[in-house]
Amino acid sequence: MKLLLLLVLFSSLFLNAYFYFCLFLHHHQQRPPSLGWTGSAATEAEAVAAINCSGHGRAFLDGVLAGGGLPVCECNKCYYGSDCSRLLHDCPADVDSGDPLFLEAYWQQRAASSAVVFSGWHRMSYSTDGKDYISIELEKHIRILHQVVGNAVTDGKFIVFGSGSAQLINALVYALSPSNASSSPASVVASVPYYPFYKKQTNLFETRAYGWGGTTSSWANASVSSTTNFIELVTSPNNPDGQFKQPVLGSSAVIFDYAYYWPHYSPILDPADEDVMLFTNSKISGHAGSRFGWAVIKDEGVYERTANYLSLNTMGVSRDTHLRVLKLIKVMIAEKGGKAYAWLKCEWKEEEDCHEALRKGSIISRSGALFEADSRYTRLSLIKTQDDFDLLLKRMQPLVSHEDMASS
Amino acid sequence: MKLLLLLVLFSSLFLNAYFYFCLFLHHHQQRPPSLGWTGSAATEAEAVAAINCSGHGRAFLDGVLAGGGLPVCECNKCYYGSDCSRLLHDCPADVDSGDPLFLEAYWQQRAASSAVVFSGWHRMSYSTDGKDYISIELEKHIRILHQVVGNAVTDGKFIVFGSGSAQLINALVYALSPSNASSSPASVVASVPYYPFYKKQTNLFETRAYGWGGTTSSWANASVSSTTNFIELVTSPNNPDGQFKQPVLGSSAVIFDYAYYWPHYSPILDPADEDVMLFTNSKISGHAGSRFGWAVIKDEGVYERTANYLSLNTMGVSRDTHLRVLKLIKVMIAEKGGKAYAWLKCEWKEEEDCHEALRKGSIISRSGALFEADSRYTRLSLIKTQDDFDLLLKRMQPLVSHEDMASS
Repeated sequence: MKLLLLLVLFSSLFLNAYFYFCLFLHHHQQRPPSLGWTGSAATEAEAVAAINCSGHGRAFLDGVLAGGGLPVCECNKCYYGSDCSRLLHDCPADVDSGDPLFLEAYWQQRAASSAVVFSGWHRMSYSTDGKDYISIELEKHIRILHQVVGNAVTDGKFIVFGSGSAQLINALVYALSPSNASSSPASVVASVPYYPFYKKQTNLFETRAYGWGGTTSSWANASVSSTTNFIELVTSPNNPDGQFKQPVLGSSAVIFDYAYYWPHYSPILDPADEDVMLFTNSKISGHAGSRFGWAVIKDEGVYERTANYLSLNTMGVSRDTHLRVLKLIKVMIAEKGGKAYAWLKCEWKEEEDCHEALRKGSIISRSGALFEADSRYTRLSLIKTQDDFDLLLKRMQPLVSHEDMASS
Repeated sequence: MKLLLLLVLFSSLFLNAYFYFCLFLHHHQQRPPSLGWTGSAATEAEAVAAINCSGHGRAFLDGVLAGGGLPVCECNKCYYGSDCSRLLHDCPADVDSGDPLFLEAYWQQRAASSAVVFSGWHRMSYSTDGKDYISIELEKHIRILHQVVGNAVTDGKFIVFGSGSAQLINALVYALSPSNASSSPASVVASVPYYPFYKKQTNLFETRAYGWGGTTSSWANASVSSTTNFIELVTSPNNPDGQFKQPVLGSSAVIFDYAYYWPHYSPILDPADEDVMLFTNSKISGHAGSRFGWAVIKDEGVYERTANYLSLNTMGVSRDTHLRVLKLIKVMIAEKGGKAYAWLKCEWKEEEDCHEALRKGSIISRSGALFEADSRYTRLSLIKTQDDFDLLLKRMQPLVSHEDMASS
């Protein structure tokens, strides 16, 4: 009996030691860093992100509220139901707009590194730490991104921010138009096929200094008076046909719209080094809704006229968007611009057509020739499913072994 | 000995129960909700908010980095040093711009309720859940705010969002101008003294449909042809003199700029019920940097022309700003628009001048007469220091007792 008592006592003491150790651990190691003022916003954001929309929609913090107090699922086109699980019959495939939602999954996979917390007092002032209402750090990181990707030379050039490249197109048209009232107005032109927004916007904002001048082909064959001022809009790679483009009228003023000159849309041949270059975050990170773009400008006078336009139009871009875009660009720089497509060069001596060589190995790619590049190049799309990617790796294996053997 | 053993055993068992209970509590009650993907962003935001800038500056998440990897303090005008603690000698007081930074402390005191977490995939699309790129919940809460404050009638009217009221001024001027090319251009006018931005902006964006027409006084005495179209800009309360204003030319088109018709700048006499009304978040919450304003429009045609302008100018306002402004407006609604000034009415029979009555009690306020209101009203500024507020309460005490005695 005494032995039993002793046994129970030791067990109990052991349990006490164990419990004490557990409590100690809880206090000193396992307790997550306690959050203060950000806690409820963080909890709320995680609750909304966890709402199940069946993979065919998503819920947002500022969505319309459902019965339970949480926002409703906003469904993809053709899907409906409270969790977006139901598919509409006879729903047409909508491939009309260039909404870059294919990048949504990229950011969902990088949830922790791409999240940002806004304090209630974040950048309330009109002024920022840079001039022209721009953030020094964001401008710096945009220059780094161009350097990492290798698609544009920004050294010695000015950068302005716009509420999407939409705003910058008209700001640049204004800045490149004659400032002298007695000059004839500039004609804004583009080559067929062109992004229809150019014409719609220029017609609406037309002033005495510029107006829409139609397509370049209508001017190329006409005898043009030497006093005609052209502002030529050149989208390269072009929307919609993906071709690399150059100005055709020998215009003194050219706006190069490089919206698609990024590795997930195009091979990057050389860094562009033009006087006026336009970029939009919507086509890089996919955040069309944030309304953020930038122009890289060589001439100081053009830069100052553009900055003045932006100041009197909207007093710069939302400083909220500055912070969010900075975070996104940091993620993209950290991943060195690796993205959605791979631009592959085949170095085998016996096979100059890379697309054809891969096809023999059961890999269907897009030939470099289609991009007007050398046929030793080909494009691999990596933005498909995990199953597709696994199959690609499997098919690549014998090709890589073949190359190893050839080189040894 | 056996008794001692039993005593030790019972103590130990009691401790077992106690520890078990403690652990149970830790697991089920005291453990803060563990954060997932928001954790590092939340930690980062709290670290930046905790940077000591001596009360004469603040650090931001997207500020330039100091040596230690954290952003530098951005100092108030006239202050410098790594923690903004040093005051420049002979620094002039800068009261030039209308930067509403006096509201910064308000939001710092409401850190938890005004914080927002943005996921990397928040509203990437061009489209929102509402039409014209606007958010249904934000529009709804703007209408509620007007109802709570009682400064504008929004029922049966359209609302458009702009990147600050700056963008909306020109959008409305465009929308109210003659759409018929053969009409003479509209003259945009304002009464002296007026906000100089009106003239600068209109001159820059002038088209064949409208231009700056100068001051109303230059037209009032001239014999105006009946075909002259005026677009009259009326700021009420006025910037810079604070007066309530009405249009003076009997113009068919009037834009009422109600930027300052909020309780922290003005007494709210009646809800405004005009055809075209302009508001800006920068003067309500103080977030000038977010670039957010809205217009309340009665006529459907004017609304559609305004929305078309905004679509072709910037494709709407940053959806990032939508979410942040929604959070801020929710806080303001919850506090029922109580703000920075108190508009006091004295009900004593023996004293009709409220300002004078308070002055006798050593409280210096701003008489209602200065706001062209009854002298029974006076304005108390509550946006000064805690010391000032404590003194106000102390001085109010005898006055309130006096009223209690008078009414009993």
